Amino acid sequence: MYLGAIEAGGTKFVCAIGDRDGNVHERVTFPTTTPEETFGQVIEFFNHYDVKAIGIGTFGPVDLNRKSRTYGYITSTPKPYWSNVDFVGAITKHFDVPIGFDTDVNAAALGEQLWGAAKGKNSCIYMTVGTGIGVGAIVEGRLVHGLLHPEMGHILVRRHPNDEFAGSCPFHGDCLEGMASGPAIEKRWGKKGAELSDRADVWELEAFYLGQAIAQYILILSPEQVIVGGGVAHQPSLLPLVRRYVLDCLNGYVQHAAILQHIDDYIVLPGLGDNAGICGALALAKQALEK
Amino acid sequence: MYLGAIEAGGTKFVCAIGDRDGNVHERVTFPTTTPEETFGQVIEFFNHYDVKAIGIGTFGPVDLNRKSRTYGYITSTPKPYWSNVDFVGAITKHFDVPIGFDTDVNAAALGEQLWGAAKGKNSCIYMTVGTGIGVGAIVEGRLVHGLLHPEMGHILVRRHPNDEFAGSCPFHGDCLEGMASGPAIEKRWGKKGAELSDRADVWELEAFYLGQAIAQYILILSPEQVIVGGGVAHQPSLLPLVRRYVLDCLNGYVQHAAILQHIDDYIVLPGLGDNAGICGALALAKQALEK
Repeated sequence: MYLGAIEAGGTKFVCAIGDRDGNVHERVTFPTTTPEETFGQVIEFFNHYDVKAIGIGTFGPVDLNRKSRTYGYITSTPKPYWSNVDFVGAITKHFDVPIGFDTDVNAAALGEQLWGAAKGKNSCIYMTVGTGIGVGAIVEGRLVHGLLHPEMGHILVRRHPNDEFAGSCPFHGDCLEGMASGPAIEKRWGKKGAELSDRADVWELEAFYLGQAIAQYILILSPEQVIVGGGVAHQPSLLPLVRRYVLDCLNGYVQHAAILQHIDDYIVLPGLGDNAGICGALALAKQALEK
Repeated sequence: MYLGAIEAGGTKFVCAIGDRDGNVHERVTFPTTTPEETFGQVIEFFNHYDVKAIGIGTFGPVDLNRKSRTYGYITSTPKPYWSNVDFVGAITKHFDVPIGFDTDVNAAALGEQLWGAAKGKNSCIYMTVGTGIGVGAIVEGRLVHGLLHPEMGHILVRRHPNDEFAGSCPFHGDCLEGMASGPAIEKRWGKKGAELSDRADVWELEAFYLGQAIAQYILILSPEQVIVGGGVAHQPSLLPLVRRYVLDCLNGYVQHAAILQHIDDYIVLPGLGDNAGICGALALAKQALEK
């Protein structure tokens, strides 16, 4: 039985055909242009398969409230052409199957819980550090939604005393995303992160901010597993530094062996690697089918 | 049908008899001394009633993991005599009824969701600002637990540029609790909060820290209702200032009418007033009975 998966990013869309065990059988990637053109390509791809459900993990902000008139929409994004776009509506018009719809990071958190690094756990967070910083969360076995969906990338962080960078977030200046996203790294140091891999000071500062943020997430959500993905996480020296800053920041307050003794197994890379996003969308399809 | 409720604080215990509609029929209060003496008084009180379930909302940290050997214990508290104390065991030895057991703030969040300011909502946070700062949370209809329970009072806050107070938290110095709890106010200003009610600068600074923290909780949990209780919240000028700092801090990023247009109804005092704690314990009893 086939399931469909859509990983909708601001730069590219990935569509895939997979199964209920998290295996991806086919996939295509195309650039995100206008909704008309991009949805056209999505529909063309899925037309070749008899999918029983489709999962959508998308950039946002999105309306996830099923009682809302604009449920399934991408809402107030600054991305041209994509504000107030009925994503779920565009898909259901062509495919009469259950649709799972959530943020890209919530999708990835669900994929990691089903098939990846948080398998068998009842809670986890999935953080992606790239063009932006986003975090998805599962609490008590459920993806977190409330008034809206979480926007954890925008929490305030304490500035490093030697860091004079103003921050790159148009809303908050020096919030976490403003200080530690890929564009923030590039703006602060004048080069992309990938070209700075041998600069110890770059990753020390990056870990200072990410570790501080993860410590706050731990104090607020108490997740059983912390997963860090996205382009910036590819830097091999980063995660060990992040773990150290998390421990520094908590300072022994959260007394659990997972943190105090086994932090290398507690804060980890995605178990699904670079498939975390698309497998997350597949997980949303599986969940929609089983509901 | 009677339900029993225990609100266990570091200074006093409140025990009550109530019903499934959140009504309190009888109550007693006694000081928290040793576990032997205090539990003795608890048992003596409940011996007079035929309770069908007992709810316990307690100071912590506590072990809430039902698979753990020390489930139902108060664990590593600095409070003399109360470290590694089997709270649930001490009660079940005398009363063979379902027991609900959670943190005091999680209990209060549940009480407010059932009968108070968050009635009918699927998510909320309950913050208490007093001797310490604690926050309980309901996400997707469930009390938040994970690795342990949340410890949201200890998140980092950005210091006010004019505030030179070092902070009073023994673990983190100037975390939220270290900067904004009752003892922090007293230590910074040399007087108790209750004696400072006409000092605008005191409450401006207090709101600066509380508003900042609540903005972080909103970004991470997206609660449908924010409730602020505890002794410090009795200061009438505080909540309007807190709301303003929350708006400042979010800076229009979380686009929802509850925040942008109706913040006076979004961040509120407990609907159950000073009964939030004991009604919370009653709510835990109700939940234990219905499971």
